[in-house]
Amino acid sequence: MSTVSESYLVGLIGEGITISLTPPMHEREADQHGLRYLYRPIDLSAINRPAGSVGELLRQGRDLGFNAFNITHPCKQLVLEHLDEISDDARRLEAVNTVLVRDGKLIGHNTDFSGFGTALAYGLPGAGLGSVVQLGTGGAGSAVAYALLKSGVRTLTLTDLAPERAAARAAALAALFPDRQVGSVPAADLPAVLAAADGVVNATPVGMHTHPGLPLDTGLLEPRHWVADVIYRPVETELITVAAAKGCRTLDGGHMAVGQAVDAFRLITGLEPDPARMRAHFLDLLAEGR
Amino acid sequence: MSTVSESYLVGLIGEGITISLTPPMHEREADQHGLRYLYRPIDLSAINRPAGSVGELLRQGRDLGFNAFNITHPCKQLVLEHLDEISDDARRLEAVNTVLVRDGKLIGHNTDFSGFGTALAYGLPGAGLGSVVQLGTGGAGSAVAYALLKSGVRTLTLTDLAPERAAARAAALAALFPDRQVGSVPAADLPAVLAAADGVVNATPVGMHTHPGLPLDTGLLEPRHWVADVIYRPVETELITVAAAKGCRTLDGGHMAVGQAVDAFRLITGLEPDPARMRAHFLDLLAEGR
Repeated sequence: MSTVSESYLVGLIGEGITISLTPPMHEREADQHGLRYLYRPIDLSAINRPAGSVGELLRQGRDLGFNAFNITHPCKQLVLEHLDEISDDARRLEAVNTVLVRDGKLIGHNTDFSGFGTALAYGLPGAGLGSVVQLGTGGAGSAVAYALLKSGVRTLTLTDLAPERAAARAAALAALFPDRQVGSVPAADLPAVLAAADGVVNATPVGMHTHPGLPLDTGLLEPRHWVADVIYRPVETELITVAAAKGCRTLDGGHMAVGQAVDAFRLITGLEPDPARMRAHFLDLLAEGR
Repeated sequence: MSTVSESYLVGLIGEGITISLTPPMHEREADQHGLRYLYRPIDLSAINRPAGSVGELLRQGRDLGFNAFNITHPCKQLVLEHLDEISDDARRLEAVNTVLVRDGKLIGHNTDFSGFGTALAYGLPGAGLGSVVQLGTGGAGSAVAYALLKSGVRTLTLTDLAPERAAARAAALAALFPDRQVGSVPAADLPAVLAAADGVVNATPVGMHTHPGLPLDTGLLEPRHWVADVIYRPVETELITVAAAKGCRTLDGGHMAVGQAVDAFRLITGLEPDPARMRAHFLDLLAEGR
């Protein structure tokens, strides 16, 4: 019976997620596949639970019939100890954003990194991957850096307002990818590293509606650089606008947001989502003021 | 946004409910209204929880985004102490089968009794309500007896293999409906009370696939009697078949099963379900072997 076996109940656990576009993105794509699919945001603040309750919420949700969860800030690391199995990539990243319920077990995956990788391949096909500069090494930055190396980047240079965080991240990634060059530099060295780079990725919050501005001196950008951003509120950040005006190929942050949802939808349902359709839904939802 | 505000997540809490037809009945009716509606059975045995955990499950479900629950055996009484509000009828019946989540509060209703009342009005319009005999005074029997009195029955006579249960139920109902005649009799007195009765309702398990047989001597039935059953596996019990062959008007147990779902669907969504369509879905589901 289709109404029992082919229905999906999914939850998103995190803080401040009531405006997340991921639930309606999944639901609209599921509608196109004729699935009964309900995706509930579970906002920790709204239900007055601490971030450490993520494991309890997963077990309760499993018992109440949830098929899967997305996990977001501040639970992506906290969730690790509560899982029965963890994919190799998520274990290396030490971060899980997708949990599947399979035969009562909780299985962790990470589609933040794979989503960025998919976005890069889909949105910037043929982009040069010899040398890339990444700004910002927080949570999103960790997934992006891992994805860049998985995508084949030979030399990855990290920079961060917190230099010790960039250095620690570079060391961890160098250990995971021993055949690559992974290092960190202070912002003052950006002119030199950008001169030798194929592309640059912004993984800092600078450019968001709440943190307007530019994350680097765009005078350093040349038309041969590709420029990617992870910010999607707004989709057209000042960085993306200026870079495009300079003739750079660009990848806006909506591609990563859609990419993680594309990969999560595939994991949850076993069906192949349509990335272009999901991006169109995503842009519609943003335009609706969501 | 319709995908957020007009979606419904509903659970059924009880024992041995994986074969319940209520979840797909709700889902199919919701489809006709264009609602995103997911109804999950939550079987206590399957998740290894005691019946006393019903309150905990309700609170967990509320936090995870459930809009409503149906409650069934063995939790209909146990749930009472965990609710923030209880409808007058459910409080009098001391049984709740439907819980709504409204602004974080858990509000109890009973659609077993109202469902039987609706079924009686819809399935046996104009049935004589002067005097009715009811066989069986367990959980379903309590709701049926209450519904019969709410529907206007003047004289209600209960009988049960456990005479003290029938007597206690009769006393409780007499207190709630002081202007009616409510009493209990031993089975030996059935010839006399049936001779004076308009109708008879079976609320015992006799006639189920697992308890085949007849709950009374059908030699006592006359064409002027109406005969109702609460059993719906099978829909055509031996009692219903024999009574129909004798020329009695009959109401099979599917009507009550559909009636409770009709009333629950209305409470949950605020929309008017189509009882005939829900009954057709119900019969389809039975025919599918559910």
